[in-house]
Amino acid sequence: MNAALHQPELAPQIVAALRAVVGEGQFALHEPYFAGSEAAYVQECLQSTFVSSVGKFVDRFESQLAAFTGAKHVVAVVNGTAALQVALQLAGVRTGDEVLVPALTFAATSNAVAHCGAVPHFVESEEQTLGIDARALREYLSTIAERHSGVWVNRATRRVIRALVPMHTFGHPGDIDGLLGVARDFGLALVEDAAESLGSYYHGVHTGTFGLLGTLSFNGNKTITTGGGGAILTNDAQLGRRARHLTTTAKLPHRWEFRHDEVGYNYRLPNLNAALGCAQLEQLPVLLEAKRRLYFRYAASFGTVSSVRLMAEPAGSRSNYWLQTLLLDESVAEQRDDVLAATNDTGLMTRPVWVLNHRLPAFLGSPHMLLPVAESLERRIVNIPSSAQLALTP
Amino acid sequence: MNAALHQPELAPQIVAALRAVVGEGQFALHEPYFAGSEAAYVQECLQSTFVSSVGKFVDRFESQLAAFTGAKHVVAVVNGTAALQVALQLAGVRTGDEVLVPALTFAATSNAVAHCGAVPHFVESEEQTLGIDARALREYLSTIAERHSGVWVNRATRRVIRALVPMHTFGHPGDIDGLLGVARDFGLALVEDAAESLGSYYHGVHTGTFGLLGTLSFNGNKTITTGGGGAILTNDAQLGRRARHLTTTAKLPHRWEFRHDEVGYNYRLPNLNAALGCAQLEQLPVLLEAKRRLYFRYAASFGTVSSVRLMAEPAGSRSNYWLQTLLLDESVAEQRDDVLAATNDTGLMTRPVWVLNHRLPAFLGSPHMLLPVAESLERRIVNIPSSAQLALTP
Repeated sequence: MNAALHQPELAPQIVAALRAVVGEGQFALHEPYFAGSEAAYVQECLQSTFVSSVGKFVDRFESQLAAFTGAKHVVAVVNGTAALQVALQLAGVRTGDEVLVPALTFAATSNAVAHCGAVPHFVESEEQTLGIDARALREYLSTIAERHSGVWVNRATRRVIRALVPMHTFGHPGDIDGLLGVARDFGLALVEDAAESLGSYYHGVHTGTFGLLGTLSFNGNKTITTGGGGAILTNDAQLGRRARHLTTTAKLPHRWEFRHDEVGYNYRLPNLNAALGCAQLEQLPVLLEAKRRLYFRYAASFGTVSSVRLMAEPAGSRSNYWLQTLLLDESVAEQRDDVLAATNDTGLMTRPVWVLNHRLPAFLGSPHMLLPVAESLERRIVNIPSSAQLALTP
Repeated sequence: MNAALHQPELAPQIVAALRAVVGEGQFALHEPYFAGSEAAYVQECLQSTFVSSVGKFVDRFESQLAAFTGAKHVVAVVNGTAALQVALQLAGVRTGDEVLVPALTFAATSNAVAHCGAVPHFVESEEQTLGIDARALREYLSTIAERHSGVWVNRATRRVIRALVPMHTFGHPGDIDGLLGVARDFGLALVEDAAESLGSYYHGVHTGTFGLLGTLSFNGNKTITTGGGGAILTNDAQLGRRARHLTTTAKLPHRWEFRHDEVGYNYRLPNLNAALGCAQLEQLPVLLEAKRRLYFRYAASFGTVSSVRLMAEPAGSRSNYWLQTLLLDESVAEQRDDVLAATNDTGLMTRPVWVLNHRLPAFLGSPHMLLPVAESLERRIVNIPSSAQLALTP
């Protein structure tokens, strides 16, 4: 039980390093911060009575997101899961297809695939980015997939492998060039799950804009929040139109008639939530700067803690540092739960990474690669308090 | 084109009867009304920073809804479509099943069935309630369905007919006793789509609480709104727990671990929207009273317009009068579009009923009964301005 007898006792060192940065008190993992026009815009929205799926804040939020990310078309929706489900459908994912997703991700990535009637096929991660290992994936696909009349088929399951969904873990951009190459060579639609990476860039270009489509989340624990919310990004005008149509019940425009031309979804972001989002987006540059500052403070503080590495943005990328991440060395990984208990006990909220999705009961029947790196990361990751307000002042 | 040559010209009479009640100005079909604590609660929610899926307003909204409707268990979700989809899944609807729904309904009812991977099977309406004709349905099922190892199967399609979804059209309760009898005799789960009927009662009991599960909507056009929102109602404790679990990503409670035990949904209503809902629910009795008053004013005004009937609450029921409804006689049904044009042209928003769902492209392959009454109603219904604020003062 007690690893302290033969290993350096890590928990007190980590508590001390955290306290040196955040000071005394209780700290959540990530809390919203409303210091701009949040209250004013939400009041304006209520006064207009346009609180639902039509209103100027939804349009403005989409324009602001397009301007910020560089995506040509943005459709705001109720949350990131809904965004990813619709993006996958628009990318051609159909019942019985397989979709390549990292085993190391929040369950929503895999759920969105299941909501399309498709099967997640779990792939390996790399330690440098915490994202999908493009090289290992290429090698794997060369072995297990074969080409049949223009599509690639899983030789074992006979299902079409339709799409590839990188997820930019904790805001760190994955190996996008490598993954674009794999997608091209194996005929896969690339759909980026950028739920965690608003404000993260790969070679100067915003994450979520490299694939056919990309998706964002504005859940309460994200860098900015709309309460619940998400968005679909695309540079393809037709896909943008289709995304808007599908997420607004597929109703055809008419002065009074209610005619819908396909099975649609009630997924449009309410104007009330968009009002909050407009104000939050105005604050985003300040929040990103603070989160970066927090990274450097933690880096300085953890520099003296051996056996622990603070995750830095990958070379060539700029991360939003959504969740600050400690990577324990394998030699001390068995102390992870002691670290989690000690930090949470003293009011410093920390958490491990998600249970690898191939081990969730819903996905036990899903195919997966060998996942030694993902399994190692699962044992070693600890997220620490990451709110922007921990470092708002220089 | 012009029916006026051989029929009484209806449009000017209807415009006059509407103006006599609402006065001069532009009037939408249904607008939200925020006169209580809406602004205060939403501000309180923002100040707490708990705007997302956890917070006191979500819990309070659910308790208030339970108290108002009498449902033992209430789970607040992002909208009525999501509520119905999850309710159907909890009622046992699976891919390839058939679900009996009225052809005369908003597309969301049928979409929710499709989102479960099931097939809507469209059934006939009755003119007295605008809901499903229980007698015609019983006769139809006796002909087309047969019992196989405990379930009823559509003899033509060989699919299991799993559930029956009455929808309380424009807030008028359907023939619940008749439908409960059909559900019992044909082994169907009854799931009420009460999206339009918050505040409507059948024999003194709130709609949405008779079936295994029921669902509500708080979209911007409903009697009360949360921006976007809905709820699942049930008197079954286990179904209530399952509804909460499925709509919150099926995460198992744990101090820090992220383990999900089935494919879940991110459907929980954000606390921000629930804050609005708590204030709106406080206003609900006043709004219902005003909507009833508006009915009586319209009834007096339209009493002198021949060939038109204002829809009254069915015997034994109390309606919320969500949308006031004119029923044109068949003899003047061909003037419907003239009426729609004339009223909308003068700033009085009106609309016809939804296109019958069996004629929507997505559902052309779905089975349906003969639908003479639904088809007649489709030609003859005109909804007129129905906001509570049209009759707030006695």
